[in-house]
Amino acid sequence: MGQAIRIIGIDPGLRRTGWGIVESLGNSLRFVGSGTVRSDIKADLASRLCQLHDGLAEILHEHMPHEAAVEQTFVNKDATATLKLGQARGIAMLVPARAGLPVAEYAPNAVKKTVIGVGHGDKKQIHMMVKVLMPKATFDTDDAADALAIAICHAHHRTSAAHQARLATA
Amino acid sequence: MGQAIRIIGIDPGLRRTGWGIVESLGNSLRFVGSGTVRSDIKADLASRLCQLHDGLAEILHEHMPHEAAVEQTFVNKDATATLKLGQARGIAMLVPARAGLPVAEYAPNAVKKTVIGVGHGDKKQIHMMVKVLMPKATFDTDDAADALAIAICHAHHRTSAAHQARLATA
Repeated sequence: MGQAIRIIGIDPGLRRTGWGIVESLGNSLRFVGSGTVRSDIKADLASRLCQLHDGLAEILHEHMPHEAAVEQTFVNKDATATLKLGQARGIAMLVPARAGLPVAEYAPNAVKKTVIGVGHGDKKQIHMMVKVLMPKATFDTDDAADALAIAICHAHHRTSAAHQARLATA
Repeated sequence: MGQAIRIIGIDPGLRRTGWGIVESLGNSLRFVGSGTVRSDIKADLASRLCQLHDGLAEILHEHMPHEAAVEQTFVNKDATATLKLGQARGIAMLVPARAGLPVAEYAPNAVKKTVIGVGHGDKKQIHMMVKVLMPKATFDTDDAADALAIAICHAHHRTSAAHQARLATA
């Protein structure tokens, strides 16, 4: 059977960073937890980045995941929004990396393709499929639901990769 | 006379992050040090962000600055470059903030206006004025020179702000 692997998915954002943790064992998935780390919009940027850092570090400390997956988002509308997102995303990747976790990145359409079967679809479809795949899953925000979808995507891809590796060395 | 304030200026970038430290006492400026923190372009993004984090944390530990200033750069050409810069910039703001330093932000034209007198000008003019203002200054890259210019900009503005505050309470 092997060992259960605990995965944290992170959907980064300066205002709200969603996180979702699943346990993957073979083909089965178990919901562990999810939530949203918020930064105070009235605080200065450096303090907000610290808030995201400390919030994520606390989640890692509490749940001790083995691997992390972060959404590879692009905001094409304007440079200011993209820069803001980039800053939050830097923190979202740094925290698990400093804790020694491997950090995978997935494009939004890869996440959709894994979770709902096609590379496009709205948030509602993703939320529904997260509930179908893990009926016990709960999430307080869209960002937390997206983070769970990212964790599920990684659980799927890492299993496929491990399976490929086993075949290759068989 | 008051106490000398040690300021670190940071010019963030994923490949190279420049840093420059100056000491400001009244109207005088003293060069303390400068350099460039590099990330390994062959490493994955999370590892590169860790390298920037650890490099900057080491500089802070060694030089113990009191305040930090980071350039507020925009890359308008493409979203990918802006996202990359944002990620590096997130780390450049996080490290001093977590060390308890106030972190100021300055737009590139504010830095130019302070250092060369006008809001536009090329890198050569900035480097020349950094040398005029602090003849002992050395820098190994353009990024380190820019970081010194950012530190000088903050030294100037924080003095003006302190001066205004003194006038207001006189």
